[in-house]
Amino acid sequence: MFKDALRDVVEHTQGGQAGLLMGFDGIAVESHVRDGVELNIETIGMEMSVVLKQLMHAIESVQAGAAQELAIQAEKLTLIVRVLNNDYYLALAVAPDGNYGKARFLLRLAAPKILSALE
Amino acid sequence: MFKDALRDVVEHTQGGQAGLLMGFDGIAVESHVRDGVELNIETIGMEMSVVLKQLMHAIESVQAGAAQELAIQAEKLTLIVRVLNNDYYLALAVAPDGNYGKARFLLRLAAPKILSALE
Repeated sequence: MFKDALRDVVEHTQGGQAGLLMGFDGIAVESHVRDGVELNIETIGMEMSVVLKQLMHAIESVQAGAAQELAIQAEKLTLIVRVLNNDYYLALAVAPDGNYGKARFLLRLAAPKILSALE
Repeated sequence: MFKDALRDVVEHTQGGQAGLLMGFDGIAVESHVRDGVELNIETIGMEMSVVLKQLMHAIESVQAGAAQELAIQAEKLTLIVRVLNNDYYLALAVAPDGNYGKARFLLRLAAPKILSALE
């Protein structure tokens, strides 16, 4: 179910490269990489998890409420993170020329379904 | 000059609340808060700076290249960060119902001007 949901988001996003369901402890639940894309999304997730958690704490500490979505645009990759709950997040890696808006929209749609299957 | 540039971005963004030019060491160069908005953007920047730097290192460590922009959507605030160079960044706080796309666009426009004045 998780695999299908991740595949849907990746394949329906122009420039979508890989999707990931991961714990903030850096342990992956599921991932999907588009055919022909060389990207170790689980390694990216492991590197990011701890920092993402710190960023969420920082944003809460300034009374901005709970973080819901993060997007990081780098030269070679855009990473969109959707927070599911205190323990898990979804991430989508998109090529720099990919459809960023569609990626965010599809992640937002997928989040409640994945969350209800997690709980 | 910095003050004018920050004011422009904040006031021309629907829902724009505050703008900040800050070093990654957490020391503010300049800030502007829209009239009537109660937001300590410099405190937010101080809390975020160290974590932002760590996030930039994490994204570089996975061969995604240099981070250029970060956006964090929280319940009560969206924070958009434009990296200027290794030392400085611009941040814009936008209300949850504000114009996120315009905010990103105006920050991107302002960045090279502010950067050239910094160097």
